[in-house]
Amino acid sequence: MDVGEFELISDVTADLPAGDDVLLGVGDDAAVLRPAGDVVVTTDMLVDGIHFRQNWSPAFQIGRKAVAVNVSDVESMGAVPSAIVMALGLPAEAELDWVRELSAGVRDEAARAGVSLVGGDTARSGAVVITVTALGNLDGRAPVTRSGAREGDLVAVAGRLGWAGAGLTVLQRGFGSPKELVAEQQCPSVPYGQGRVASEAGATSMVDISDGLLADLGHVCAASGVGMDLATSNFELPEAIQRVSAATGVSPWNFILAGGEDHALAATFPAGTELPAGWRRVGVVTGSGEVTVDGERWEGPRGWTHFG
Amino acid sequence: MDVGEFELISDVTADLPAGDDVLLGVGDDAAVLRPAGDVVVTTDMLVDGIHFRQNWSPAFQIGRKAVAVNVSDVESMGAVPSAIVMALGLPAEAELDWVRELSAGVRDEAARAGVSLVGGDTARSGAVVITVTALGNLDGRAPVTRSGAREGDLVAVAGRLGWAGAGLTVLQRGFGSPKELVAEQQCPSVPYGQGRVASEAGATSMVDISDGLLADLGHVCAASGVGMDLATSNFELPEAIQRVSAATGVSPWNFILAGGEDHALAATFPAGTELPAGWRRVGVVTGSGEVTVDGERWEGPRGWTHFG
Repeated sequence: MDVGEFELISDVTADLPAGDDVLLGVGDDAAVLRPAGDVVVTTDMLVDGIHFRQNWSPAFQIGRKAVAVNVSDVESMGAVPSAIVMALGLPAEAELDWVRELSAGVRDEAARAGVSLVGGDTARSGAVVITVTALGNLDGRAPVTRSGAREGDLVAVAGRLGWAGAGLTVLQRGFGSPKELVAEQQCPSVPYGQGRVASEAGATSMVDISDGLLADLGHVCAASGVGMDLATSNFELPEAIQRVSAATGVSPWNFILAGGEDHALAATFPAGTELPAGWRRVGVVTGSGEVTVDGERWEGPRGWTHFG
Repeated sequence: MDVGEFELISDVTADLPAGDDVLLGVGDDAAVLRPAGDVVVTTDMLVDGIHFRQNWSPAFQIGRKAVAVNVSDVESMGAVPSAIVMALGLPAEAELDWVRELSAGVRDEAARAGVSLVGGDTARSGAVVITVTALGNLDGRAPVTRSGAREGDLVAVAGRLGWAGAGLTVLQRGFGSPKELVAEQQCPSVPYGQGRVASEAGATSMVDISDGLLADLGHVCAASGVGMDLATSNFELPEAIQRVSAATGVSPWNFILAGGEDHALAATFPAGTELPAGWRRVGVVTGSGEVTVDGERWEGPRGWTHFG
């Protein structure tokens, strides 16, 4: 394959509606945006064999995931996602059809997330490498950081937990179902819009769950100087995860509390907050300095390392 | 080497002063910026063996270049560079000292460019891959695009032309001097600040010279629906380039008119504009639809392909 940069970027951006805040999109030296308030920016690099595997994930889902995991970080600041730029490294042997499917996935997820793809770059590389940078608008709100949790706050989550980790276990054992778990491993269902909702509901801290719930809440506790206690009775135990646990002997709590790549949102709210729709209370902020489960130190895995 | 993401990003960002517009830097899910006016954003991916070679360039210069070539695109929109985020893919065999030198180069060039490094990501990859996304502020000015050149405008450049291309020829033939040309190939001297200066002086179009002067001016002509004629008598013929030409038999005009990677700025201004310091008039905008040199079609190379 020898796709020129311009042709490829044109393909990715074809038919993609641009938001009102995009003054200039793809095609010049840089894009121009008109931000609403302060701007949030984050970047992530996804590498074939580390963050995805072509034999486990169709190109469409890989494209979706590259957008989703980045925009998730914008959501977790309480911002409204606005735009992305993408740099794509492709090996010489990449097939044009594969790249088109990837592009279609990028477009699909950008539409779900409500972001405009405003720029990009392509390069020849040894393996597929995708870097997405995502921007968001705070619309006059303060960012919701990791450091604002206070003792007595309640801990809540939005989105799915454990699905991506259980899906990985399924794939690693050579199976393709439960399909809903495999799909979450291929591309997480980010709870788009809930970042702003949480901010408006008074969230005191927020983080997206990429490493595993206990690990990421541990980052919040470290930044905020607090602890947390989670109650397992507050969590959903999806039937598909129970089936994987029964078949593999892995506790469902390993998936739910320590599985990574779900990109759910976890936030703390002042005690007494009536949680908005989509949010589930799972615990309370304590002064202990660590994250406990049902009042006990958790002895299982806390987090996640990518499979590469 | 097994450097954790946090440790590495901390190393890169140590002692780096953040601009007043950085409300939140490295360490949370995303950074937060307070933009001055509309925001410019651009991204570029640099791959080992394509955009740099470790045997031709020390890590310090590679880090500098990753920043320079991105910020150059912010300059060429007439914006003031403000911030960068960087995603860094590193092979297992990367040496910690090499990564620290790279980081030092990133910090050095960020300081030259006046940008704050506000976020990053690291990943394991087969070869070194560096993606930088650069942001800039327009401070109430309109962006200077490729499409605003008008017949009769004058064409001017700021920065060096031909140095990086001549430096590449030197390296390809196994030599290490003239050192000033090799240094420009390792990391171009971007004329920081001249993007804003050109915009304030009334530039009607602008582009940064990454592919070669004739090729990039060709992009401006296509976007603006105009032609240009350049006069060779208007250009500097640096003594170092003349020496390389004498030693290799390559015309100095191949380097100056068609050598890429210099990241000079080229802009058009209304006829009669008194050019600001740092800008040199090199030609005029015509209605011909093509870029000519001394009134003739240029028969030499027009642009650049990376050496990989």
